[in-house]
Amino acid sequence: MKKKQSSSKAPQNGVHAPRLKLRRVGIDTYRENVAYLHRDCALYRAEGFQALSKIEITADGGRILAVLNVVDDPGLVAIDELGLSEPAFEQFGHTEGTRVRVAHAEPPVSMDAVRRKMAGERLGREDFLAIARDIADNRYSKMEMAAFLVASGQTGLDRDEILWLTESMVTTGDRLDWEEPLVADKHCIGGIPGNRTSMLVVPIVAAHGMLIPKTSSRAITSPAGTADTMEVLANVELDPDALRHLVRVHRGCLAWGGTARLAPVDDILISVERPLGIDSQGQMVASILSKKVAAGSTHLLIDIPVGPTAKVRHMRQALALRKLFEFVGDHIGLHLEVVITDGRQPVGRGIGPVLEARDVMQVLENDPDAPADLRQKALRLAGRVLEFDPDVRGGQGYAIARDILESGRALDKMRAIIEAQGRQPHPPRPGRLQFEITAPADGYVTAIDNYQLARVARLAGAPMEKGAGVDLLKKVGDPVHRGEPLYRVHAEIRADFEFARSHCRRDSGYTVAADMPEDWERRGDFPA
Amino acid sequence: MKKKQSSSKAPQNGVHAPRLKLRRVGIDTYRENVAYLHRDCALYRAEGFQALSKIEITADGGRILAVLNVVDDPGLVAIDELGLSEPAFEQFGHTEGTRVRVAHAEPPVSMDAVRRKMAGERLGREDFLAIARDIADNRYSKMEMAAFLVASGQTGLDRDEILWLTESMVTTGDRLDWEEPLVADKHCIGGIPGNRTSMLVVPIVAAHGMLIPKTSSRAITSPAGTADTMEVLANVELDPDALRHLVRVHRGCLAWGGTARLAPVDDILISVERPLGIDSQGQMVASILSKKVAAGSTHLLIDIPVGPTAKVRHMRQALALRKLFEFVGDHIGLHLEVVITDGRQPVGRGIGPVLEARDVMQVLENDPDAPADLRQKALRLAGRVLEFDPDVRGGQGYAIARDILESGRALDKMRAIIEAQGRQPHPPRPGRLQFEITAPADGYVTAIDNYQLARVARLAGAPMEKGAGVDLLKKVGDPVHRGEPLYRVHAEIRADFEFARSHCRRDSGYTVAADMPEDWERRGDFPA
Repeated sequence: MKKKQSSSKAPQNGVHAPRLKLRRVGIDTYRENVAYLHRDCALYRAEGFQALSKIEITADGGRILAVLNVVDDPGLVAIDELGLSEPAFEQFGHTEGTRVRVAHAEPPVSMDAVRRKMAGERLGREDFLAIARDIADNRYSKMEMAAFLVASGQTGLDRDEILWLTESMVTTGDRLDWEEPLVADKHCIGGIPGNRTSMLVVPIVAAHGMLIPKTSSRAITSPAGTADTMEVLANVELDPDALRHLVRVHRGCLAWGGTARLAPVDDILISVERPLGIDSQGQMVASILSKKVAAGSTHLLIDIPVGPTAKVRHMRQALALRKLFEFVGDHIGLHLEVVITDGRQPVGRGIGPVLEARDVMQVLENDPDAPADLRQKALRLAGRVLEFDPDVRGGQGYAIARDILESGRALDKMRAIIEAQGRQPHPPRPGRLQFEITAPADGYVTAIDNYQLARVARLAGAPMEKGAGVDLLKKVGDPVHRGEPLYRVHAEIRADFEFARSHCRRDSGYTVAADMPEDWERRGDFPA
Repeated sequence: MKKKQSSSKAPQNGVHAPRLKLRRVGIDTYRENVAYLHRDCALYRAEGFQALSKIEITADGGRILAVLNVVDDPGLVAIDELGLSEPAFEQFGHTEGTRVRVAHAEPPVSMDAVRRKMAGERLGREDFLAIARDIADNRYSKMEMAAFLVASGQTGLDRDEILWLTESMVTTGDRLDWEEPLVADKHCIGGIPGNRTSMLVVPIVAAHGMLIPKTSSRAITSPAGTADTMEVLANVELDPDALRHLVRVHRGCLAWGGTARLAPVDDILISVERPLGIDSQGQMVASILSKKVAAGSTHLLIDIPVGPTAKVRHMRQALALRKLFEFVGDHIGLHLEVVITDGRQPVGRGIGPVLEARDVMQVLENDPDAPADLRQKALRLAGRVLEFDPDVRGGQGYAIARDILESGRALDKMRAIIEAQGRQPHPPRPGRLQFEITAPADGYVTAIDNYQLARVARLAGAPMEKGAGVDLLKKVGDPVHRGEPLYRVHAEIRADFEFARSHCRRDSGYTVAADMPEDWERRGDFPA
């Protein structure tokens, strides 16, 4: 009893307060523990709990914190019961009916550090670790996480703080060990539709023999993620053992990474960042690198596309971001390289899972009609990854990658991976409902808005409808005649079709002008 | 359909998505709308909603936003149902079984302003109004409110912004009109145990004939609020009509203000501030003044106690806070005066509802044993309130107040108010379990820690156990002998008793030294 005396009047409650019966409430309160007490529960009244109070629930050997919701329906929890939402019940680990004690809880100890951050202070390594531990243990409410993120975003984290945040997110989750000295990965910071290079880099690199166990996310705000696109061709939901075996045999995979408990704090923070629209570079670097380190990567290539409608709009921003990736990568023990790429328009032709998978297969099959920009970019990235191999001379990666692609070895490797993951028996096809958007005048396509095109593809139904999306028939620099199709939209559902069409008519996302701007070809902005 | 095209792909969902049956879920998610969808609901899967997603629910003529919780128990919501938590169901205003449509929702429009505040910008009057309206309409999630509060607290709000926040909190709630030109009130910013002056100021001022319809809160973090203490003597939960009638007849009341919808945005923000430990002066000023204006006050006296263990620790802080109160008060149309008072130790002897009520009645009864400091402070405050009366000459308020008290008219008024509110038939008594903390040496009491003493009273059971608390037998400046009692702790429950005692033994909160510091009596710090 002595140990807790300094933290509220919790301990004595158990002595005189009635115990409550534990009940599981089948509500998934995603990574926030929620407890349910009936409004007429004697304890609720006696303790003066308030809605949103943080309460501490204890039973023999167990203790969790939860946010209180007050219940008026005895069907949910009776007046002698204490309900816990799914994640809370699971974490608590006791059976229904267990007698539990309930008391006021102090905020998690690390909230002191959050308050210091709110006051504009720089935090230390231990602070970040304490915060990450409390978040991983579901001790933070959504409000408290929002406070941490807003406070960090507003005064900014310096690069040491970003490093410590990254480390602490790795430490508080599982970490894969592939038991090899070189485990490669690549990652694009996102924002460019159609940019499906991973599905080319993985088979090329794996065909070379380098280990590249790539796990990806599904699309959240984009029209397709690598996992969504690969799913057109193969099963992507693999259990950890199957995945491990497959990677040993084939040196690579293209799987969904959703089930592993890698850097779980990152997932939790993202679930708060996204609805709040918080988007800081520090959080992005910590998020990407913590996931990669936890996944066991030793060598990582980061792709930062730059363009007026990309996530990074100016070269100076891209360079600053590169330094930040390098700093954190170096200190966390990753061999990390950054390439800055052309993000001025979508890459490839298709936008949406089926159309992007088609582009990828065209490149692998050395189809002369394959989109040249996607092929070129994938070779460049694959080449840089191959140069992680000490036996590959600097500058020779590109030629090796091209050789692997042109010889058909990349295609063979992709087929092997598809078979191993489980070939999709009935691959979906492009959506049957189609319309085209045409050029309003003669001239050249001078700009394609990444954001608008991604939006059209989503409105058309991607990524939920795999066949929905946009097929780009013209790219920047192409001459066009008035009335000539610029792109084709595919949908599977009539309402999506109508909705995307009326949107495109208001803003096609394309700019057509009489002449190309003079500086378009000045690629010096994008160092190879 | 056209109007909504720019806000996500929401509108077309109604066309092809199945409608769901509305269900009331008896969970009080205090001012946050929560919606419950079954995990196997076709819509949930098709739309790719995520836990914590903000969704929009529509039915004929109605539309609300809610945060999504995912349900695994068909007893809570079936797969063709959409559940709404109590506040959401009530706000939506449709009956169970109504067919509703569900779609992704954009964040509330005013979140743009919150994002600008996160970026360090100054907001305008319209921004605060938009934010307050969205909060009042339950469009903000707890995360979003936390983002607003942390962002505001971190870069700070300037005084115009605090004024606009205050105005917007008044505008978005009900506003009482007492139909009299002078409606007085007093308010202490808090932090000083035992400081129960309102229960003296109200009868004195009301006996003079000035209208002072005082509503108070219950204790949240302190051992007693005015409502808790008054409840020892009388009923404090009055319905609005009864309260209005009572005030007309008796010119004053001492009631709980909890049920009125005055500045509801303030209540909502406080429910987020408190668990986060956000405590900014700007929020405090906006909170206090919005409530007072909404309650119909025209003249307000603010008490700012200063002392090393008070909320305001330095005179320069107190002066800055006074300017801020004056600025906002003047611009919002309040006649506002600020007094800075001695907050270096608790006021009166009792801490806890029963003991504080005893002190108050001793003063009213002109008991020679009544605590002099409480009497003195109450007279000073009452005098200042009386000087709001244009017929009272500046400087004469104190004498009038003293006259009202000494003549027994204040006691008569208090008795009348108690009877009118409903006398407590069985007034609780001081807790039977008692122990005393004694002086460790001969000397003087040189300091009493407000925070520690409040803590002891809470540990002993206050305010939940009305008779629990602390009775101060010595105050600062009193000579003491070793072993002489400094204070007595009352508890009603054995566990509380033990817990408070072991806490007191580690830290009594009293400092006893051989001599008083020379500057103790230098009261020049506290201008009258």
